[in-house]
Formats: sequence, C-alpha cells, structure tokens
Amino acid sequence: MPLRLDSASPDFEARFSDLLAGKREASRDVNDSVAAIIADVRARGDAALVELTNRFDRAGVTAATLRIPEADIAAAAARVSPQVRAALQTAHDRIRAHHERQKPTDHIYEDHLGVTLGTRWTPVDAVGIYVPGGLASYPSSVLMNAVPARVAGVSRIAMVVPTPDGEINPAILAAAEIAGVTEIYRVGGAQAVAALAYGTAAIARVDKVVGPGNAYVATAKRQVFGQVGIDMIAGPSEVLVIADGSANPAWVAADLIAQAEHGAGAQSILVTTDPALADAVESEVERQLALLPKQAIAREGWEEFGAVITVASLAEAADLANRTASEHVELALDDPEALLPAIRHAGAIFLGHHTPEAIGDYVGGSNHVLPTARSARFASGLGVLDFMKRTSLLGCTPAALAELAGPAITIAGVEDLDGHGRSISIRLNR
Amino acid sequence: MPLRLDSASPDFEARFSDLLAGKREASRDVNDSVAAIIADVRARGDAALVELTNRFDRAGVTAATLRIPEADIAAAAARVSPQVRAALQTAHDRIRAHHERQKPTDHIYEDHLGVTLGTRWTPVDAVGIYVPGGLASYPSSVLMNAVPARVAGVSRIAMVVPTPDGEINPAILAAAEIAGVTEIYRVGGAQAVAALAYGTAAIARVDKVVGPGNAYVATAKRQVFGQVGIDMIAGPSEVLVIADGSANPAWVAADLIAQAEHGAGAQSILVTTDPALADAVESEVERQLALLPKQAIAREGWEEFGAVITVASLAEAADLANRTASEHVELALDDPEALLPAIRHAGAIFLGHHTPEAIGDYVGGSNHVLPTARSARFASGLGVLDFMKRTSLLGCTPAALAELAGPAITIAGVEDLDGHGRSISIRLNR
Repeated sequence: MPLRLDSASPDFEARFSDLLAGKREASRDVNDSVAAIIADVRARGDAALVELTNRFDRAGVTAATLRIPEADIAAAAARVSPQVRAALQTAHDRIRAHHERQKPTDHIYEDHLGVTLGTRWTPVDAVGIYVPGGLASYPSSVLMNAVPARVAGVSRIAMVVPTPDGEINPAILAAAEIAGVTEIYRVGGAQAVAALAYGTAAIARVDKVVGPGNAYVATAKRQVFGQVGIDMIAGPSEVLVIADGSANPAWVAADLIAQAEHGAGAQSILVTTDPALADAVESEVERQLALLPKQAIAREGWEEFGAVITVASLAEAADLANRTASEHVELALDDPEALLPAIRHAGAIFLGHHTPEAIGDYVGGSNHVLPTARSARFASGLGVLDFMKRTSLLGCTPAALAELAGPAITIAGVEDLDGHGRSISIRLNR
Repeated sequence: MPLRLDSASPDFEARFSDLLAGKREASRDVNDSVAAIIADVRARGDAALVELTNRFDRAGVTAATLRIPEADIAAAAARVSPQVRAALQTAHDRIRAHHERQKPTDHIYEDHLGVTLGTRWTPVDAVGIYVPGGLASYPSSVLMNAVPARVAGVSRIAMVVPTPDGEINPAILAAAEIAGVTEIYRVGGAQAVAALAYGTAAIARVDKVVGPGNAYVATAKRQVFGQVGIDMIAGPSEVLVIADGSANPAWVAADLIAQAEHGAGAQSILVTTDPALADAVESEVERQLALLPKQAIAREGWEEFGAVITVASLAEAADLANRTASEHVELALDDPEALLPAIRHAGAIFLGHHTPEAIGDYVGGSNHVLPTARSARFASGLGVLDFMKRTSLLGCTPAALAELAGPAITIAGVEDLDGHGRSISIRLNR
C-alpha cells in the first residue's frame, strides 16, 4: 500500500517531512573508483578506454572500432519500423519547433552616461551526450538532449552509448540520425565521461557533457565539472498530481502508474482535496496494475514510494507541491490556470485533465530532461540556454570613464588593489 | 620575464598549447577532509560548526553568536568613510540598474494544434553567499553576488564570511548593508558551505550557494552540488588584451599589472599585431611595476604567468582569444565593434581604449563574477538568471491530445513503457 496522509492529522507535518527526506536510491560511494578510471583515461587514452569498455561491456572494441560508422547508423536506423520512424520524426519536429522559440536574443544598450552594457549569447562549440545502454535506453532522450544543442547552434555533437555485449537498441540510432547526430561512440560509464572531458586520440574532447547515467556516470560528471560543463545530476523520476473532485480517477491512476513503472526509485504522489477521489484512485491503481505487463516494477514503486495525501484546499496542495519541488506536477483540475501562479517550484507543470505527463515525455515539444530530487528549487529543465553561454560587454567613452573613475578608484583603494585604481587614473591624465 | 611568443615561429603552436595547459594553482586534493567536515556538520550541526570555526578561525564563537547582530552590521558600516560608502552606493546602484535589465520574461503560447507550451521563470527561495575573509575579502564581490539575487526576487539571502581572529573588514558589512543583506554568519570554509546546504539549528538551509573561496570551499561546493545549486568553481583571475598600433602602451601595461596584482595564479596576456607595441608595453610594465606598492605580487604573477604574443592579424588574435576563453578580454582597438563578432568565448569583453577591466570590477554595472580557467567555453558570468529557474508548461485540449496520441503511444511501446502509453490511450476512450 502507498502511504496515505491527511493534512489535518496531528502527525501530518512529521510524516510529510519523512516523505520528503526519504531516500529513493542507494547512494553508492563510487568516488574512488571513478577517480581512478578518469586518471587512467587521462594517462593512457584510448588504451584505457578500450580496455575498460571490453571489461565492463564485453564489447570487443578496438580504438579503430570505438566509433560507430555512419553506414552502420543508417543500417540500424533502417531496421526500425516506418511507424516508429514517423513517431520519432514527429517528436523531433515538435521538440525542435518548441526549442526554436527558446533562442535568446542579445541585449546591448547604452546607459545615460554613454556606457555600453550588454549580454551576448553564443553557442558552446562541442557537446557530449551520454545515452545509457541496456534497459533504460530511450530514443526519446536522444532527441531531448540533441535537439536543443542543435537549435543552440552547437557545431559538434559527440554521442556516447555503451553497447553491453555489443548490443544497441536500433531506435537509439534512428533517433540520433533524425536529430542529425553522426559522431557516435560505443563507450559508456565513467570512462566515456572521462574521454569526453579530457579527450583521447579517438574521441576529441568536448566543452560540455549532458545526459543521464548510473552512479558511475553521475559521479564522473561531478568530478569533471569545471574541466567541462555538465547539465545536472539526474535522480529517480517523480510526479505529483494535484486533483480535485473534477478529476477522472482512472486517468489519475494511469498517470501515477506511468511514473511508477520507471522503477529505480520513481515516485508517484497524489494530492487531492477530495477524499472520495483519493479512494477511487487507489482502487483504480490496483485495477490497472493488474492489467499491466510490467506490473511488478510499477507495483513495487507505487507501494514503496507512492503517497496519497488529502488536503483541505488547493492552496494547501500548492504549498505541498512547492515543498516537494517535483520533477513533474500535474494539475488535474477544470481550471488549472487558476492554481498555476501558486506552484513556484516544479520542473514541468501539466495543465488540465487532458495532459498526461507521458505526452511531455515524447511529443508535447517541451523537454523531458527535468530536475529531480527536489532540485527544481534551484534548477531548470534542459533547454537551448544550456547549450549557450553569455558574454557580458562593457564599453566606456572618455567622458563616461571620467564620470565613473572616482568611485572605482575609491573601491580599489579599500580592496588594496592599487594597480586597479592606476589602470583607471592613468587614462585620465591629459 | 613573461613568455614572449610570435605566432609566425615554427614552435608557436606547441608553446601556445603549453601556455593554455599550464596549471596556475596547486590542485590540492582536499576531498576527504572536506567530506569529513560536511559529514560532521550534518551529524552534529551547530556543535560541529562552532568547533570547526573556533579551530580554524580562532574566532571564539558560540551557536548564539554565529550570527552577526544587525546592530553590529550597522555599527561596522558606520565606521566606513563617507567616501567609501558613497562609492559602494554608486557601484550598487549601477549594478542594480544593469541587472534589472536581465530579468527574463515568461514565454507562453499556443501552437497550431492548440497545445499550450511555455517557459515560466521563478526566483530561487533562499540563497547563500560565501564571502572570503582575510586578504581577498572584497566588498565589491558582496555587491556582485547579492544584487542579482535581490533583483531576481530571492526572498532570503544568507551570507557567510569567516572572521579570522574575530576580524572582519567593515567595508564588507557596509556593502552587505547597502545590498540589503541582514542575515550574516561569521563562519567560513567547508563547514560554512555544509551548514548552508544542509542546515543547522542556527543556520537554516538554502537552495543555492554562490561565491568564491579557497580549495576547501570549492571542493565543498562540488560535493554539495545536487543537494543545493552552486554557481561555479572559481579559479585564478585572468585577462587577455588584444591591441593594435592604436593602443597606448602605458594603458595596456596598467591593465596587465592590475590583473597580475591579484596574485594566486592570476594571468595577464597581451596579443598584438604590433611588435613595437609589444616592446613598449613590456617596458611600461617594468616602469609601472617599480611604482606599485604591492609590486612583488604583481611582478611575480607577470613573470610567472604573463605572456606577450605577436600575431599577423586581428583575426588570428581573435582565434587565440577563443582558444584561451579568457575571463576578461580587452579590445584595445580604435574600432572594437569590428572584432567583437569574432570573439566567441569570453567571460566579459571590454570595448576600446577607455574601458579598463577594473571599471567592470566595480562600477560599470556588469557583474565581475565571471568564468575562469577556460570555462567561458561553456559557462557564463553571474547574473539574474542564476538566481531563477525555469518551469516548463504543457497543456493539451482533448483534440490536441487525440492528435498527438498515436506517435506518443508508439514511442512508449519502443521504450517498453506500456503504462506511459496507457495513460494516453485511457483518455481517448469515449
């Protein structure tokens, strides 16, 4: 049974805090092994990369075969059914269209003193995309990572994907082909991240590494951060559904199950003002679970991490949502816009009864790479801005410099940086 | 003597690569000690914080005196001269005015299928600002970190500053007062970062930690990343000046010295199309160094890390600047705008002969917290966006859902996520 809480209970605060604090994944300390792998790849380059790949993935690669030939990409992509190709193309086109609208504009202006000030955006040159292999190998994630990079204007995208026992999901390669990614290497784990960050003979280094992965990949990203940029440290997925009496319990139940079927600590929470809906959703989850091919995973996730919370008002529901700062928040309400301003911390918000979260996973157009584990308090979903950077511009006329010199030299003095002051005063001498 | 390179020399490529690869700070591996400090603060809270603070800073604090009373802030601020206060106020007002223009706007629209898509910006709730104590304790940095947070709408700003032997620069507190920061704790090091990230009885936890610090602080930020957001890992400061024959050698020399006087690995590079200017600047640096009170630090930095590079064209200069991806790039040219599009990787660009970098450090209005150590390849200077996060919005009408259902269910099938497909198909049954 999932946790059932009522915000009116005396012990609610304590139990809700426990729910928030609960760990949903084993935090494995792989710091030392990852540091050793990174050091090895830095020291021995491809030799280390090949050795580690053959050991961990039993892939039988050499430095010459690390890269998947473009002909092989095309051949694999061709093995995917026309229906799947068309679906991936639709997803790609919608993701692309939406992300095109995220492109920032430069903002450069002159202030009242004649000082030029501004922000200019430019793309990152080279990006590495990590794509997990095996079970959680999702072609949709290839699109979600590659498309914003391309829209940003990134000129080189290098994709790495482990191929355990030499196997790769052809839909992954089809998605890469649709997204225009042609530089793909069959490597994974911390060794792939190290190669992307520091470069080897076979894999030129990139400027930023994005994409989800296991504990080794996440730790490697943390360790190479600074040498390259990284996106975020992804945790288990999660949804929080806010529903009132207008919600359809079967639809809400289906959404809770969709989240729980990710397994690996995925969490589904229902917050509702309607106790009858809460009961009906719980029954519906049971009924629908019984019909699901992978019911074991979904049931385990629902029972271990799921929660159904009844509250007195939608305002209270919004408050709990903000404290949870969930990756996905669904507003299963007739008038979702009315509650929208109250939801301040969420990776993505899904509006109304006809927007199941799964639409956003694939074809809505928005990005499905979103902050997890309460990091929506400070982090954002992946987007075009993540593949660009800002340069600030400053320009003074002689008159503007003369105007600003006094306070600048004064502060330089307080900071004991005379050379700073002198670089200004020397320009004032006629 | 600084390094002198000519891009026409046969060994130029090798020597320039060495310059780029050169380490300018000892990379101290303090991972284990930092992990132990963070674990201690998490386990024992204020007791650990007080013990560590009294051990490292000899500060004689208790849990009750960790926070600096507002009356003490006001009293310290009042000890600062009216001239310094006015200068800090000018800096504050200009930084504020510029950052007000960085505020993002939400972008929400309906596409041709009637799907609502959008990006909404909201501020981070609580931010911790780390301010170094001791030598490199800069009131200007307090403004550069606090002002964008306030402009973003952050409702709580907690500042931590170590007070070695109980001492604190009153200008730091004056800057905090001007920026409206009233919650200030006399703690520093990894223990301060741990307290901000996880909270203690005395210091409530925040959502994001920003600000520069030593190896312990940088390592602690890296380790708490994910639990909270962080800004960047700051390295030694650096400037690259691109100059042609129109530049004043004395002014360029003053700018190179201003950077070098930061010490601690700070780097000054001149790239010029004019060998005569290169010679003149080198002589001027010598002449001006002799007049500088802190000449030892600046001379050491200039001789150890400085470089003067002659090139055949401004295009070549821009190429070297992009490969260097410097924190600060000065364009000491009559027509800086002409070269601007060619400079793609830089933290900040200073336009023309009358814009010494030091103006940007204090009163230009732009932020002086900028990416160092070549991270301008992927990172940006601090700004309002760093204190906000994006939530994506998605809303389907029944008709739009029906339109998108097919491809979404197909992709869910390929990914073996039947529950995802069912959350869509269940809504299509009439």
